[in-house]
Formats: sequence, structure tokens, C-alpha cells
Amino acid sequence: MPTVSVCAPAAEERYDIVIERGLLRRAAPLLGAYAGRRAAVVADEHTATLYGRALLCALRKAGAEATLLTLPAGETTKSAEQLFALYDAFLAAGLTRADAVFALGGGVIGDLAGYAACTYLRGVDFIQVPTTLLAQVDSSVGGKVAVNHPRGKNLLGAFYQPRLVLIDPNTLSTLDERQFGAGLGEVVKCGCIADSALFELLESLGSRKALVPHLPEIVARCCALKARYVREDPHDHGVRMQLNFGHTLGHALENALGYGRMLHGEGVCIGMAAAARWGERKGVTPPGTAKRLVALLDAYGLPSALPQGLSPEQLAETMALDKKAEGRTVRAVLLNRIGACDVFPMTARELVDLTFERA
Amino acid sequence: MPTVSVCAPAAEERYDIVIERGLLRRAAPLLGAYAGRRAAVVADEHTATLYGRALLCALRKAGAEATLLTLPAGETTKSAEQLFALYDAFLAAGLTRADAVFALGGGVIGDLAGYAACTYLRGVDFIQVPTTLLAQVDSSVGGKVAVNHPRGKNLLGAFYQPRLVLIDPNTLSTLDERQFGAGLGEVVKCGCIADSALFELLESLGSRKALVPHLPEIVARCCALKARYVREDPHDHGVRMQLNFGHTLGHALENALGYGRMLHGEGVCIGMAAAARWGERKGVTPPGTAKRLVALLDAYGLPSALPQGLSPEQLAETMALDKKAEGRTVRAVLLNRIGACDVFPMTARELVDLTFERA
Repeated sequence: MPTVSVCAPAAEERYDIVIERGLLRRAAPLLGAYAGRRAAVVADEHTATLYGRALLCALRKAGAEATLLTLPAGETTKSAEQLFALYDAFLAAGLTRADAVFALGGGVIGDLAGYAACTYLRGVDFIQVPTTLLAQVDSSVGGKVAVNHPRGKNLLGAFYQPRLVLIDPNTLSTLDERQFGAGLGEVVKCGCIADSALFELLESLGSRKALVPHLPEIVARCCALKARYVREDPHDHGVRMQLNFGHTLGHALENALGYGRMLHGEGVCIGMAAAARWGERKGVTPPGTAKRLVALLDAYGLPSALPQGLSPEQLAETMALDKKAEGRTVRAVLLNRIGACDVFPMTARELVDLTFERA
Repeated sequence: MPTVSVCAPAAEERYDIVIERGLLRRAAPLLGAYAGRRAAVVADEHTATLYGRALLCALRKAGAEATLLTLPAGETTKSAEQLFALYDAFLAAGLTRADAVFALGGGVIGDLAGYAACTYLRGVDFIQVPTTLLAQVDSSVGGKVAVNHPRGKNLLGAFYQPRLVLIDPNTLSTLDERQFGAGLGEVVKCGCIADSALFELLESLGSRKALVPHLPEIVARCCALKARYVREDPHDHGVRMQLNFGHTLGHALENALGYGRMLHGEGVCIGMAAAARWGERKGVTPPGTAKRLVALLDAYGLPSALPQGLSPEQLAETMALDKKAEGRTVRAVLLNRIGACDVFPMTARELVDLTFERA
């Protein structure tokens, strides 16, 4: 048959994550690429007040024409309504294809601003400035951007790598305890799936207070781990799925409770504890692993028990709709031991049964 | 500064465009990759009736579980409302990340279904089955997907390459004369910018009737040219902008008149004639080129004159908002001669003045 072959060579996307205490106030030298261009800085009410001025100053010092766009704080902002409000704000700011979008905030702002940057005029430059622990160790790296849909979290999304990630661990000092804990959940996850030394460091520190001086090192360690996964599997079709440890159940819990009632990182904590039990019950995970993990979560004030009153039916229903329900099976991440894991295709039904099985 | 480098290697995206009369009824052997997967076929009322059954049969013969999703015909379908209706239909059909979306129709269906495929669950496989001349020679190849926004055509969009493009030139026999003409405009464009032999072939055939037997060859020639541009410049930052010949003014006219009042290809015809005059007035294009181009457009019943009553002010206003307004200047494509062109950065003002300058 007469055939024309098309080859659209995609450039390898390389970018740096710069991690340093006080970086926000000293960022201008890193922003030279934005001289003479417009920069829309998307923030929420909190991050706009706390860090908006510092980032705007750095951008202006670098020669960019910066505008601050402030959105309401909270998971409900990651909606189609706010997305379209953001497009309107980009238009009002006169943003063209040659300009750039900065996300100054946590995962909600990063995911939403990144999705908007990816889809506005077929894509403008995108820079992440994550200010929560969750965003610094997880969501700002790797190019996943998304908005929520009433039928599922991150149901609308794309892959769109940032040009640069600027991390100032000092921003974590203004984070409330609950948000900080949600980020710690992802740190624990990194230890569980691929870094037993990190897990042991967390065990030896044993409290949030003792951990604070080690934050830059811990954030860098999690970013390096994430970068390894992204290099091996940029579009999440293989090994990168290991990063979903605790997420299959975590997302389902967030959905079942309605967005914003349970933080993402809290769902992940409960999901990790459940997945450790799944692994033990299937004979994949060494006995005692779930107990050790729950003890660590307890020490850091993180949740591990399923919400009271959640029925197996509710859980089964939401799990079948979850984004990770790949071709009618669910890919569950189970631990081979602390520091190593694998992806196991299982049915949603099997996972629900394992979850509610009497020990 | 402590820095982690991330490299997200993007796989080179290769795909085939298969062009053959009667292909729709014989497509099953090309669809083996979709066996055991769900396929949502997005069509409009016309293409669903005319070709829906043939494509569904081919998919089912190949072992796919195919569902037909029918949308209203016309440019107004390329809206955020229809996009969200499509996401809902994907959810209702149980479409997962492992499934696929087929676009069966013209540019509106291809752009909208492609944008939905790109953004649903961070991207599902996408297959183009273009049924209009415009879509076969232009919009189905190269990965540009988009929806319109009240403030501008294709304002929301992304780059998302299809996995396969299936072209059956027999579908052009059911196309109305006006739609066929709009596609011919893009064929003329291909001749103007990079293929003088194609331009001369069109001159020698001299009528739509004489052209019909040559359609498979002409479509293949345009696809091959488009594939060359996509290979050299997948994200439209350089040489691919040459494909925008006639589009700067064309898009502005579509905007000024409101979507759907003027077909895209008609705007491009008028825009090409105007751009040939811009080139002559600037001394870039040899004298007589505009006259030769207008004669060819006339022979094929294609428009070349600006709409009556359009004011320079209206035009200037819409041009400044156009997606191609890159960093405050407009990149106009001007002909060096028939078969060769270059991109010239100019201001929207200058283009408006050149448009309305007395000859």
C-alpha cells in the first residue's frame, strides 16, 4: 500500500533541579533565559503572600516582565473552572508562545499551572518552584501535569517536562504540620521502594523535629531517585510505576472521600500500609514489614489505618475507575523488602479482598 | 549549588500514513495492534453515517471492542463543551490508558479527538482517519491537536502525534464543493511554499474535474511534504512555520468573522493572495507572482479577495491576538518564488498597512 512514513523526533528533555536554602531570594542568576520575556507566576493565596514578592523580584532582576496570578488555596483549585480562568489570565497578561509560566506553590498549583502551560498555544515554557515537601520530593519532578474531573483525580492530564525546578527548603518552615506530614509520606515511600538507607535514616531520626536539619539532603535524595525513574521510563509505562507504591489504594480513598477531605500524601500513607499487608498476604513481602512500616509512620504522626466505615463495595467501585486501572487489571506495587519492589498485575476485586481479609 | 539533573528521554515518534482508494473497507489487517483493546471512534453526524460502519467493522474484525461516538458537524464542535462531553463519553465507554481513540472525520474531529486523546489519563493511543481533503493533506499529519477558545482559534492545544493515519481518497467523493475547495487551498499552499512541480500540475489540470483522478497522488505528495517539515521541526519553532503561508491573515479573518462563517481553507486562500502581494510590495516576491496565484485560485473556484467592509482596525486587533504573534512580532511567510519561501518577522501593524496599501 502507498505509505508515507513520518518521524517526529522528540528532543531529549534535560533540566536541572536546584536545591538550596534561601534560593528564592538568590534566584535571579538562574533566570537569565527569561530576560525580555513575559513570565506569569501562578501562586495560591498563601504562597503569593509568602514568596510572591521574592520570585517576582528575582524575575525582574533577571530582566523578565513578571505578573503574579493568585488562585484560591486547596485541592478544589485543580479544576476545569480554574484552568479556564488561568487561560483567561494568560490572555489578559498578553502571554505568547515565547513567554513562560512559573508555578509557585504545592502540587495543586504545579499540576494546574503545568497543565495550563502545556496546553496554552500548544505549550509555553514551564518552571516549577515547589514550596511544599510533597511538591519538592515528588510532584514537581517528572513532567506529570493534570487537573481533576468530578469522576476522578488527575483524570485530565499530560506529560510536560519543566525547563527548571527551583527548590528552597526554607519554604518548608511555613508549611502546616498536616501538609508537611503528607510530604513525609512520599519520603517514606522513596525509602520503601528503592532506598533502604533513607528508610533507616528516617527510623534513626525518629521524629519530625530531628529531621528538619536534614531536609535539604533528604529532598535532594528523593529528587535524585525520582530523576532515575524518569530517565528510565519518562511516560510511566514500566519501571516508573513503582513510584505508585501506596497510590492505588491512596487515590481510591481520596476519590471515595471526595477531593480535599484526605490529603494525597495521607492517602498514600494508608495505601502503603495496606500494600505492605497485601504483599505479606500474597507471600511477596517478608513478614513483619507492614509492622515496621506502620511503626515508622506512627513515629512521624502519619496515618496508616483505613477510614472507619469504608465498605468493600465503595472501595471496589472507586478502584475500578482509577487511572491506574490499566486494561481492566490494576497494577499494584508490592515490596520485595524495604528498599525494593515490583509491579504486580492484579484485579481490583483481589485487592479489595486482600484489604478486608481478616489477619 | 546542589543540583540534580533530570533527563526525560522522549522516544522518536514514527508512524505511517497509508493512502489507498477503498482503504476503509480493507483496514482490518492494519489494525492488529488494537486486538483485545477498546477503541472509541469519534465521528461527526455525516462521517458516522457514511463511514462509521466500515471502520467499526474493520476494528471488530481486528479484534478490538469498538464504540462509535457521534458529535455535531461543524467548527463550533471544536469547543471546550464538546471536549468535556467527549471525556464523559470516554468514561462511559470504560476507556483506560491501554485503549485507543480514532478520529473519523475532518479537521474539527481530528483536532478535538486528538486533544482529548492527548489529555485523557495523560494520553491514550490516537489514530487519524481523515475524510476531508483538508484533513488528508494537512491537519491529520504532524501532531497538532487543539480546541478553540472564544478568544482565539486553536488557542488551547498540544503536540500529540498519531500512531497511524489511514487515508481513503474515495471519501472525498462525498465532500461538498465548498469543503473540497477549502482543502484544495492547502494543496495550492504546498505548491507555493515547496513544490513548484505540484503548482504547475495544478495549473495544467486547470479544473476540479480534471484533478479528481490525480487525488491519491496529490494527497501523497502533500503528506510527504508535510512529513519532511515535521521531521525537521516537530514543534513548530523553525522551518515548519513555512506551512503557515497564508495562515497569519487566514486565521485573523476566521476570527474577525467568527468561527464557521469562513472555512479555514478559504481564509488561507485569501491569506495566500494577500501574502503574495505583501511579498511583492516588500520586494521579496517576484512581480507577477500574486497575479499567477490568483489566476490559479480563480481556476479552481477559490476565493482570493478580502471580505467587503473589513476595516484595517478590525484586522489589526485580531492579528495581535493570533497564536502566531510570537513575542510581540508576527512571523509572516513570504514567497521567494513559487516553490520557495521564508519566514519574515514583521509587526502586525506593518502587515495591516501592506494589506490595505493601494497598489
